[in-house]
Amino acid sequence: MGDYATFAAFVTHDDIARVSSQTAAPRSNSLAGESAAMRAFQETREHGYDYVCVPLTRPAWHERWKRMCVENAGDVDGGGEGDRGGFKEEEWEGEGEREAEGEKEKARRDQHAAVEAEAEMWRKQPHFLHDEVTMTRLDEAEGVIGVVSDWLTLDSSDDWVRHDSEIALHQEIAYASYLNIQTVVLPPPRNREHVASYARAVNECLKRVSYMKFSVQLPIYDPAAFQQKETPRLRSGSTVTLASTLSETPPSTPRLLIPGNDFPLRPKKTRASERELNATWEMWDVIRSVCDYSPRLTLTLDLAPPLPLNPTLLGRWSAEPVQNVLLPTSTFIANAKGYPVLPKGTQTFLKDNMKHRPTVLLSGTKLGLHGKGGEAAYAQYVRHLEKTSPIAQASRKAGSVENFAQGYQDFLQAPLQPLMDNLQSATYETFEQCPVKYINYEEAICRALLDWPESDRIVICVAGAGRGPLVARSLKAIERSRRTAHIIAVEKNPNAYVTLQDRQRREWGASVQLVYGDMRQITVPEQADILVSELLGSFGDNELSPECLDGAMRFLKPDGISIPSSYTAHLAPLSSTKLYNEARQGGELKSLETPYVVMFQNVNVLSGNGGGLRGKCGPAIQECWTFEHPRKDATLDERGLPPTNSHNIRAANLSFYIPHAGILHGLAGYFEAVLYGNIGLSIHPQRKDQISKDMLSWFPLFFPFKEPLYLPSNSELQVSIWRLTNERQVWYEWYAESFLPVLNVAPRAGDPVLETVSASASTASFFASPTTHVAVPSPLIDAIDPASPPFFVREDEEAAKYGAVKVGQSALHNAGGRSSWIGL
Amino acid sequence: MGDYATFAAFVTHDDIARVSSQTAAPRSNSLAGESAAMRAFQETREHGYDYVCVPLTRPAWHERWKRMCVENAGDVDGGGEGDRGGFKEEEWEGEGEREAEGEKEKARRDQHAAVEAEAEMWRKQPHFLHDEVTMTRLDEAEGVIGVVSDWLTLDSSDDWVRHDSEIALHQEIAYASYLNIQTVVLPPPRNREHVASYARAVNECLKRVSYMKFSVQLPIYDPAAFQQKETPRLRSGSTVTLASTLSETPPSTPRLLIPGNDFPLRPKKTRASERELNATWEMWDVIRSVCDYSPRLTLTLDLAPPLPLNPTLLGRWSAEPVQNVLLPTSTFIANAKGYPVLPKGTQTFLKDNMKHRPTVLLSGTKLGLHGKGGEAAYAQYVRHLEKTSPIAQASRKAGSVENFAQGYQDFLQAPLQPLMDNLQSATYETFEQCPVKYINYEEAICRALLDWPESDRIVICVAGAGRGPLVARSLKAIERSRRTAHIIAVEKNPNAYVTLQDRQRREWGASVQLVYGDMRQITVPEQADILVSELLGSFGDNELSPECLDGAMRFLKPDGISIPSSYTAHLAPLSSTKLYNEARQGGELKSLETPYVVMFQNVNVLSGNGGGLRGKCGPAIQECWTFEHPRKDATLDERGLPPTNSHNIRAANLSFYIPHAGILHGLAGYFEAVLYGNIGLSIHPQRKDQISKDMLSWFPLFFPFKEPLYLPSNSELQVSIWRLTNERQVWYEWYAESFLPVLNVAPRAGDPVLETVSASASTASFFASPTTHVAVPSPLIDAIDPASPPFFVREDEEAAKYGAVKVGQSALHNAGGRSSWIGL
Repeated sequence: MGDYATFAAFVTHDDIARVSSQTAAPRSNSLAGESAAMRAFQETREHGYDYVCVPLTRPAWHERWKRMCVENAGDVDGGGEGDRGGFKEEEWEGEGEREAEGEKEKARRDQHAAVEAEAEMWRKQPHFLHDEVTMTRLDEAEGVIGVVSDWLTLDSSDDWVRHDSEIALHQEIAYASYLNIQTVVLPPPRNREHVASYARAVNECLKRVSYMKFSVQLPIYDPAAFQQKETPRLRSGSTVTLASTLSETPPSTPRLLIPGNDFPLRPKKTRASERELNATWEMWDVIRSVCDYSPRLTLTLDLAPPLPLNPTLLGRWSAEPVQNVLLPTSTFIANAKGYPVLPKGTQTFLKDNMKHRPTVLLSGTKLGLHGKGGEAAYAQYVRHLEKTSPIAQASRKAGSVENFAQGYQDFLQAPLQPLMDNLQSATYETFEQCPVKYINYEEAICRALLDWPESDRIVICVAGAGRGPLVARSLKAIERSRRTAHIIAVEKNPNAYVTLQDRQRREWGASVQLVYGDMRQITVPEQADILVSELLGSFGDNELSPECLDGAMRFLKPDGISIPSSYTAHLAPLSSTKLYNEARQGGELKSLETPYVVMFQNVNVLSGNGGGLRGKCGPAIQECWTFEHPRKDATLDERGLPPTNSHNIRAANLSFYIPHAGILHGLAGYFEAVLYGNIGLSIHPQRKDQISKDMLSWFPLFFPFKEPLYLPSNSELQVSIWRLTNERQVWYEWYAESFLPVLNVAPRAGDPVLETVSASASTASFFASPTTHVAVPSPLIDAIDPASPPFFVREDEEAAKYGAVKVGQSALHNAGGRSSWIGL
Repeated sequence: MGDYATFAAFVTHDDIARVSSQTAAPRSNSLAGESAAMRAFQETREHGYDYVCVPLTRPAWHERWKRMCVENAGDVDGGGEGDRGGFKEEEWEGEGEREAEGEKEKARRDQHAAVEAEAEMWRKQPHFLHDEVTMTRLDEAEGVIGVVSDWLTLDSSDDWVRHDSEIALHQEIAYASYLNIQTVVLPPPRNREHVASYARAVNECLKRVSYMKFSVQLPIYDPAAFQQKETPRLRSGSTVTLASTLSETPPSTPRLLIPGNDFPLRPKKTRASERELNATWEMWDVIRSVCDYSPRLTLTLDLAPPLPLNPTLLGRWSAEPVQNVLLPTSTFIANAKGYPVLPKGTQTFLKDNMKHRPTVLLSGTKLGLHGKGGEAAYAQYVRHLEKTSPIAQASRKAGSVENFAQGYQDFLQAPLQPLMDNLQSATYETFEQCPVKYINYEEAICRALLDWPESDRIVICVAGAGRGPLVARSLKAIERSRRTAHIIAVEKNPNAYVTLQDRQRREWGASVQLVYGDMRQITVPEQADILVSELLGSFGDNELSPECLDGAMRFLKPDGISIPSSYTAHLAPLSSTKLYNEARQGGELKSLETPYVVMFQNVNVLSGNGGGLRGKCGPAIQECWTFEHPRKDATLDERGLPPTNSHNIRAANLSFYIPHAGILHGLAGYFEAVLYGNIGLSIHPQRKDQISKDMLSWFPLFFPFKEPLYLPSNSELQVSIWRLTNERQVWYEWYAESFLPVLNVAPRAGDPVLETVSASASTASFFASPTTHVAVPSPLIDAIDPASPPFFVREDEEAAKYGAVKVGQSALHNAGGRSSWIGL
């Protein structure tokens, strides 16, 4: 199965200094030529880490930059605001005053001008001095994840600080590129108001260095959301960055690390609003949208803040490109024996995210924060979580979809068109591997036989026999039910028909009669009591089962049984950066117009149950339409065929409740079929385990959207989807609109509904106070989940308080993916 | 100047029947071979109409369609819902019962099956019978605008009625295409819930007939918005369509047509909410979005309902492709002399929309609704409005921008790059035509000279002299101010430099000294007291004035004067279907990444004044940034040039209030410059007339967006725009996010603010009761305008009630349009 996580350890300047201060390398003479940095990295790798994570620059660079770009700007006009150079115009007024200017003032101005000239020279040709960088040699930088200076404020409210930060960013990226570093971690965005400037700067990096990967460090939420509003929030200069994590000294009282204890000095809230918890994701969304979903842009999720227990709020990260997971050892708590373990919420989240195959970045392993286990205990514990993660467990289990589908996750396949194309034997082979599907077919046929009036000669017709799996199952069902039955097997694939003849001679004999040809054209020797077919696609009707069975219904006696007797298509709105990028990479204009078959992994279903604020939405996964066989009261021509395909059009208008803000990238399509009675087949995520557990034959369908659509928290998504047909083809078209409920009337004061649409009026820098992840609030904090029962079990009059404002729409998707249905 | 409006008249089946019943054509024997339809159309054209507007089908077709597709569906199962064929499964249960079925019932079923078979044959091969169509001959259909059957309900809530309506639609379109009809009018959408299905059907028409124009009939608002809520609204089957307009008998009491009188039987509201008045536009937006802004899709605006007086709400139609304007004569009221005139609101709207060059569709001119003027009075009155329309008046006025810019409206031009390209003499000629600009320059130079200390030798340097207009103006200013001054004229265009030498010899003599070369490289013989330049673009700095003047500042004495002394860029969010399509048609991927110079016409500025619900937004048109010359305290190298261009970067973060829902297609860019003192140049729409009225030199800039962004009513638009630079280029990048204010806290009951975000809870068919435009409510009805003062002059505590939810975002625009700034 292999491992899911790789590991990286942070190496600090102190770590390197410590190695440097040691005398000649102790282990081997061959190390003598290595630098202190290399020896420090080597030591880390010997502890089993795949990568080391190292700051690109040293404090000396920060000092020089601050002197040139921050302190000098503030020196004369005292704020750094306004035009570069910083002198207020008024200071120049008055010829006489200027001459009277004191010596000291003149010296100060000369000094200012000199530093400004130095800064301009730097801006013109940015370069480092030797003691300003951590690494200088190509061999030092091998296997290194570079960490960009965390003090760069690309989203500063000060135009000039922001601009000089960007120049410095490009300088660091260029230097990392010189050292052939493949991945860099960017400092977290801190200021919602100017996050677009941060994003634009990152986009510029992506354009300038065409191979490098950029990973944005980001906490899952702003820890300040759990502080009392009375606490003043700092505007900038405070971070949850790697560097501050590393330089933070461990708290003297270890009880702060124990869950359930509040930080004694600053009271914390234990609940935060949806909006507050959304803030960091909303910034990430701006960044990746501005960077047009570059596949080289990933996330380094900072798990230092305690995670909310609400799983729906964390689900959104499943749809994002989480490359790295940052775990400072201060996030760990001590278990009863003193060994480091993670709080419950973090455990669950980390296990769930093993499917992303993350690199786990551990920092502070040398600080000795926990009594037992030593430096290695942290990685060992994460390995333990990996082994017990859902994905690892499922993959190990033979017969599970996860085991069967290794390597197919998030891989887009064009749906089969078995009517147009004759399948290959290998394709049949793959599908015949699924035992569950055929077990259910056998059971359905068996029950139908038992329910059917006893007779000398019951006729079963297998329409589309392929290589014969349903023929074999029909024979078994006849045997089990002890009925006298004859089988007619129809197949139009001339190649598969050879296999059928082979099996008839060697296995089946006279009880099976073969008929070659298209079921919509041929005639059969006698009408059947039971018609069995397996023409279903991932969305039920998408491989043209309705059209084929319209042709085959002539083979069935007027009150005969069709297996399947019906099938229903289902939809849910989906978010997935991965699938959006995969669909786009098709390159053709039409690659975003075609539904794909795909095994979902890095996806998030955006819809929730509960009906929404207005109580008008359906469940998270909704039915589109159903096809039944045989059709009742169909108009047929003299050949027994429907004159047009008009009856097979369908349309659905679905309303989904979107509890948490997210980006709509497409629709997930599922089917559920009734074979006979209560025997069925289902890939509906919430029902498949009851109906056909471990069935491997179908992955879901993905209907992509050309442009991502932003959906606010608590919004409603209206999806229109059509199954259309003309004389030659069948296809789907789809379209979506989003709405936001708004209050119609004044509610009672204190009505809890209000809180769910409430918001902090502040849109200023949200990245408030220094992140105090060493002072862990209770890991039992939770988000106010608007989907929790008290809000939604409400009377009609409550729901009637809301109207809805339209807030967005998609394009109509219809250009491609048409299936030809008449080969006649 | 030409006419703005063309005219079309409705010809009804009754009109044709009347002509048909007359004996042999009275006027000429050559008409003998013409059909009744042709004679009716000819008669209409002789009344001066450019086109006739004719229903494509006759009532017989409606009867047949209804019998096949509506009545038969409802015959057996009583509703037409459910599967085609309509029999409920239960009806088939029980072998015995079926045999006992009565003869009558069997006959009924046979009849049903026969009609269903007929319907299936129609669906398979749709065709008309002779008496079901209005026209049969190619020559009959010449100059005809075809009107699609208004009873087609493409947005019916019944799946099968909708589907059969679409088949009938394609049948009519195919027939119109057979008759070579170029334009058809489509029935209005009526059902918000299923408008996406209507839209999809229209999109299919656009694909099937690749040349035909489709015009969607639509009232500006749903007249039902002004009915009391107690009035039950019908779900469908009620229309404001052409046909009902025509068949409606005139009211017996003419007083109903007089403004100010309420309809006596049904009380009306005189105010409706923003939401109610938005409904028809919102449906139009869905239709054109689903049809991907096809240039062949236009609007036929139905002006029958009385128009609200609120101009901001009507402004949105300026941005839409209004092809036809529908005016039933019942919309006209009688003036004091008994002649037909339009109500005030309709007058104003029609005059404003003359710029669309609409076709005015008049119906009911033969009904004799008004005492005076006869049949011709309606068109004569509209011609009168045309002549007094703002566009016609402005175009007639010599020297006005509208007169100067004939043919340039909404035409996208790439901005000039005078630094990179040497302009042609014809280009200089065009710009020198503008008297206002040079008058203001002369005035500014004159005042600067008067303010400057008297001296033997004042030096004026014209940086970028071109063909010499500023040199000539400087000489005049010297003369007017009676100063002794010398002019140095610098020009880098070698071709224009020949013209300068010519003028020097012939006109100017020794008082003007010419220097050839780039102002960023050359030296001048002496430093100037006044530096005059005209390097401004539509957005101020977009033709690289800051970079050029950085080079020329060496020519200016330390406390010398620069004319212009500063310039400021301004932005406003813009909606325009026309400009969006023009920018897209560039074809290249980068055509939506470049700002364009364009004379706006079919546009609507989406932003309003007043600060928005939260009081946090700026005015409708906002300042981005300013450049000042000379720069104070600049860091310069030994040549006197800035070491980097870093100081010329700029960024702006603007917050716009969007009072009415609309689609953002781009940003309008304007500039305002201070030449000297209070003399300036401005293309700011609200200020240009005070500062530089009738200045022709600059059209605004248009920054397009790749994807239209939906903005809800009362939303806030955050626009980020950057002016960026590297070693070689200058360019802009832009990005937008939209937010919707939501209530933070429980407001006081009855707080009027609530009403502005209130909504009808009903999302069902809004197209409620039969449109009663003959029973005209007061034309003085008005929308509740959230921008009216009482809502916005509010204290901070009121604004603090609101938070904001993000609802959408654009892509970052940055791929193209970079101006090279170093030719050094």
